[in-house]
Amino acid sequence: MSTYSYQSLYNFALSVFEKMGCPTEEAETATKTLLSADLRGVDSHGVARLSGYVRLWEKGRINATPNIKVTYETPSTAVVDGDAGLGLVVAPYAMKVAMEKAKVAGTGWVAVRNSNHYGIAGYHAMQALKEDMIGMSMTNASPLVAPTFSKERLLGTNPIAVAIPADKEPPYVGDFATTTAANGKLEILQRKGEDAPNGWIQNKEGEPTNNAYGVKEGGALRPLGGDRTNGSHKGYILGSMVDIFSAVLSGANYGPWAPPFVSFMDPAKDPVGEGLGHFFGAMRVDAFRPADEFKAHMDKWIQRFRNSEPVDSSTPVQIPGDQERYFEAERTNNGIPLLTPVVNDLKAVGEKFGVELKG
Amino acid sequence: MSTYSYQSLYNFALSVFEKMGCPTEEAETATKTLLSADLRGVDSHGVARLSGYVRLWEKGRINATPNIKVTYETPSTAVVDGDAGLGLVVAPYAMKVAMEKAKVAGTGWVAVRNSNHYGIAGYHAMQALKEDMIGMSMTNASPLVAPTFSKERLLGTNPIAVAIPADKEPPYVGDFATTTAANGKLEILQRKGEDAPNGWIQNKEGEPTNNAYGVKEGGALRPLGGDRTNGSHKGYILGSMVDIFSAVLSGANYGPWAPPFVSFMDPAKDPVGEGLGHFFGAMRVDAFRPADEFKAHMDKWIQRFRNSEPVDSSTPVQIPGDQERYFEAERTNNGIPLLTPVVNDLKAVGEKFGVELKG
Repeated sequence: MSTYSYQSLYNFALSVFEKMGCPTEEAETATKTLLSADLRGVDSHGVARLSGYVRLWEKGRINATPNIKVTYETPSTAVVDGDAGLGLVVAPYAMKVAMEKAKVAGTGWVAVRNSNHYGIAGYHAMQALKEDMIGMSMTNASPLVAPTFSKERLLGTNPIAVAIPADKEPPYVGDFATTTAANGKLEILQRKGEDAPNGWIQNKEGEPTNNAYGVKEGGALRPLGGDRTNGSHKGYILGSMVDIFSAVLSGANYGPWAPPFVSFMDPAKDPVGEGLGHFFGAMRVDAFRPADEFKAHMDKWIQRFRNSEPVDSSTPVQIPGDQERYFEAERTNNGIPLLTPVVNDLKAVGEKFGVELKG
Repeated sequence: MSTYSYQSLYNFALSVFEKMGCPTEEAETATKTLLSADLRGVDSHGVARLSGYVRLWEKGRINATPNIKVTYETPSTAVVDGDAGLGLVVAPYAMKVAMEKAKVAGTGWVAVRNSNHYGIAGYHAMQALKEDMIGMSMTNASPLVAPTFSKERLLGTNPIAVAIPADKEPPYVGDFATTTAANGKLEILQRKGEDAPNGWIQNKEGEPTNNAYGVKEGGALRPLGGDRTNGSHKGYILGSMVDIFSAVLSGANYGPWAPPFVSFMDPAKDPVGEGLGHFFGAMRVDAFRPADEFKAHMDKWIQRFRNSEPVDSSTPVQIPGDQERYFEAERTNNGIPLLTPVVNDLKAVGEKFGVELKG
């Protein structure tokens, strides 16, 4: 484990994106989006994925100079074609379109096709906060999840994020994979040599397993709920809704056709759309009631929930986004810890491009 | 158990709503909305609740002749004041407003305050299907659910429904409470004398319990996920998002202030808004891509998922809405079975109003 300052990781990732051929402004956007995950404690989605993006670019699956554009629109909707660009760049473009629509029509809803992995869902939703808008963000992803009663992997971990502004209180930011557990949590268990809890994974026969390598060995993650008794059909609804909004509305690949993030697996030979899909929403709170009034009630909501009586007095009730905000404050001050395999991986990327990772 | 035809229950409920003073057209809307639950197999939300609505009306908490109106709007949004009317009438009004907005602006989003229980979420979302729109519906409800780590009941079972049109295939209709299990399932266990599965309930100390009476004895339902390890913080995000969209955006009561459905519990003495809140959405699919194209891909999506390899060949993979549709076909033909206590309850309501329940 070594710790790097935000600025040193920023300089490194920016240079790598520039060496890939991204125009400077887009390289800056990609870097900021990518590193928001490291700052917020979502280590699986941050700089640890930089080499993954590089490998996809080497395979010709990421276009460093995309012509990202709106291909269709109505007063409150748009479709964006990402031209196979980095999701880290395509998504901020699309979220901006959603917010521009909301300024005029009250709300804005943007479906995106022909994109790639977009980092953490929450970062995009949070862009709306500075305009006193509620932000929403979702994306489909590599198929790793089996619907209830299925042996097959047909859905991604398909996250949903919602960001809601408050007044004196920090904003409400929910950001979650629609599975019982995200894939990154399995990697942590594997490193520790621990078993997976019940309800997280099924083996390749579709039976529940505690084997933390169950997904790697041909099994699947399970939708939120874990099994039918505990509501996995609800997690399946959530994951499939994300898939349909992100990919069927936009014209991207859906379900098992969603292109895998890993470069060693090829996309489906019979695509049903273009690239990966995302879906974004922005709702002006003053399209419903005066913003001051809304935000004062959000403060009251947040205070009531935060101060509710905890089961265990040492574990207070949290508001969605609390944990990530604590990480962000801590890591902005004290730096971002990286595991040795991640550091080695970054150094290999650096050597390829002649960019040095400074401590 | 006795079985009644749809038409006989329709005539009975219509007369009761008329005797309460609802104008005929609104009594018809209320009856259709209420009975959609019985048809679709959601017995807890149908005619079994009729006496509950009557008791709320007797307490002066339901206004049989409300002046339902739009109090604020932008091109893609509106706020509706339900004037303490039946949610069964207020919700269809608001969903219509959402659809009218969508016709012009591409999408429509309507927050509702000062309403009451609105029946099943799915019915309202499904109204959008006939216009080739995606429908969404959510509502807050009586506080029975404890956020992760909390002893207190701060949220309702806060359902979310989404209805998505297809072409030759029947539509996709997801409709689910954001808890591990709906309250109605506990009543079934109580009648059978069975324990509740792990993850459904906590007792009044906040500890997990299998006691099917745990909620009645001061405990709480748990958010989808059941506990932190299995993702209850995600169910908590979903339930609280529904609460905020339905009630903080609209000016209704949120969180623990949401008025209880049962007439023997009074609403909070320090309300933070008016009545219960709902939130509806309608998105024209051709605000994103040609409707024929969208619906053809939905058919492909549905076929791929339905035909995926099942874990157990006797239990095929379902599409959200399949189960409710089978119920609807079966009960339309063969009638709606009612438990004896429900029949007795209806007969008591009938006697009160001089309306006969015919077999």
